[in-house]
Amino acid sequence: MKTLSSSIEVPVRFSETDAMGVVWHGNYLKFFEDAREQFGRDYGIDYLEVHHNGYFIPIVKSEISHKASIFYGDGAKIEVVLEQHDSAKIVFRYSVYNMRTGQLAATGMTMQVFMLAEDRSLELIKPEFYANWESKQHWIDA
Amino acid sequence: MKTLSSSIEVPVRFSETDAMGVVWHGNYLKFFEDAREQFGRDYGIDYLEVHHNGYFIPIVKSEISHKASIFYGDGAKIEVVLEQHDSAKIVFRYSVYNMRTGQLAATGMTMQVFMLAEDRSLELIKPEFYANWESKQHWIDA
Amino acid sequence: MKTLSSSIEVPVRFSETDAMGVVWHGNYLKFFEDAREQFGRDYGIDYLEVHHNGYFIPIVKSEISHKASIFYGDGAKIEVVLEQHDSAKIVFRYSVYNMRTGQLAATGMTMQVFMLAEDRSLELIKPEFYANWESKQHWIDA
Amino acid sequence: MKTLSSSIEVPVRFSETDAMGVVWHGNYLKFFEDAREQFGRDYGIDYLEVHHNGYFIPIVKSEISHKASIFYGDGAKIEVVLEQHDSAKIVFRYSVYNMRTGQLAATGMTMQVFMLAEDRSLELIKPEFYANWESKQHWIDA
Repeated sequence: MKTLSSSIEVPVRFSETDAMGVVWHGNYLKFFEDAREQFGRDYGIDYLEVHHNGYFIPIVKSEISHKASIFYGDGAKIEVVLEQHDSAKIVFRYSVYNMRTGQLAATGMTMQVFMLAEDRSLELIKPEFYANWESKQHWIDA
Repeated sequence: MKTLSSSIEVPVRFSETDAMGVVWHGNYLKFFEDAREQFGRDYGIDYLEVHHNGYFIPIVKSEISHKASIFYGDGAKIEVVLEQHDSAKIVFRYSVYNMRTGQLAATGMTMQVFMLAEDRSLELIKPEFYANWESKQHWIDA
Repeated sequence: MKTLSSSIEVPVRFSETDAMGVVWHGNYLKFFEDAREQFGRDYGIDYLEVHHNGYFIPIVKSEISHKASIFYGDGAKIEVVLEQHDSAKIVFRYSVYNMRTGQLAATGMTMQVFMLAEDRSLELIKPEFYANWESKQHWIDA
Repeated sequence: MKTLSSSIEVPVRFSETDAMGVVWHGNYLKFFEDAREQFGRDYGIDYLEVHHNGYFIPIVKSEISHKASIFYGDGAKIEVVLEQHDSAKIVFRYSVYNMRTGQLAATGMTMQVFMLAEDRSLELIKPEFYANWESKQHWIDA
């Protein structure tokens, strides 16, 4: 499979912890979001670009598997990999590391589809602007 | 001052607690939001009604004073009071109670203004639909 | 498989929407949490009960599949089903409905494990208090 | 008044926007938190340090005044100023700028007190570790 990858380090907000003293499990989806944003900056494609082309790319599927905790003060490093697919979907895979311990804290996946912003209808064919962007990237065999 | 009041009881989400084991201070603004929603249901005016009339009512000022903590499992009761003002602003005052202890946990205030949804410009005169709504309420002298 | 089920209806907070005008995908994990809480109230078992017995039950896996959007003002109904498992894990499955349209908006799953609160070590055997609780429930063959 | 100041730039998360297309008003308290964290890194004092000394420093008062919106993609710069007070309270003042437009988006304030972690009792005298830290800083007359 051909892939593109990126990574980002983020501090853990106190507001992101819960009464167990660790990052609340749902907040990992915000870390995934941070990683997608960084990916967009690195590869010249982001939500605004997508919106300017008339599309939303809502998340239709997400998965998180937790391996270890991240405590307040630890920091999180998120590695993100975009998979190349023929169909009109965007699949990212994530690995979140506890920066203090180096441990893998979680892995995850999100799948996005293309939706026409105008009428919120699903786009079954990969939009041209996105196919163009894909064709210009230096994909790595993973 | 003439006022209208309402109240709502909400459970505390685990995700709303922080590593100190209590509701994260910023989440009180969500309790305030819950109370405004309940107020809207009680008095027949809500964000959607406001939007249908072509307005946003963004919050331009908010204040919270914390008096006691709310722990996971405690529950929160929020009392909300709308003040009547001549100018084009919406001022709510809030009291949040810890339902387990009965203690006053926080007080607060939010101020909203009218903004034309079309161009996000500030509306300095109270919109007619809102003045109409005001005139039909049974305000209490407080 | 033997199961227990419950459900809850929750309003959608304005703060839970995003710039696409719908509930932000990650907030479905809060709906799942609301449903687990309701389940706990219905069946006499909750986080506090679990904590009093010396355990945390952190979420180690979560999945969400989105089918339709929930807009501000729509409301969400969450149906939740607990599966009975021999091993020391707690698996809930969720269906989230848009209350205005009646549409299935999302399905999902969470898996929790037992962790000793004292040293955050994983408990591989189902704790006695939990097995006791299980034995007193009226499980339904699903 | 003597002060210390710091600043931080943060991207705006998509999850932080609301259905009006802008950062939800309550999320500014997270920006304030980011700024306090940066302040802590710059001046060698943070929550963990405070906790190691046996204290919590809960927020007892917060205020936000909104002047302009921050849209998804804009970025936020937060300037934070710590005021020196004789009493046992920590007062930060904040200015949040929209990084795309340069506009002042919001100003705000938070007040924290010292609470003994052991029994959550209020500490009315400035703790020694904090007074020591204060005495080593190069305060500016503002």
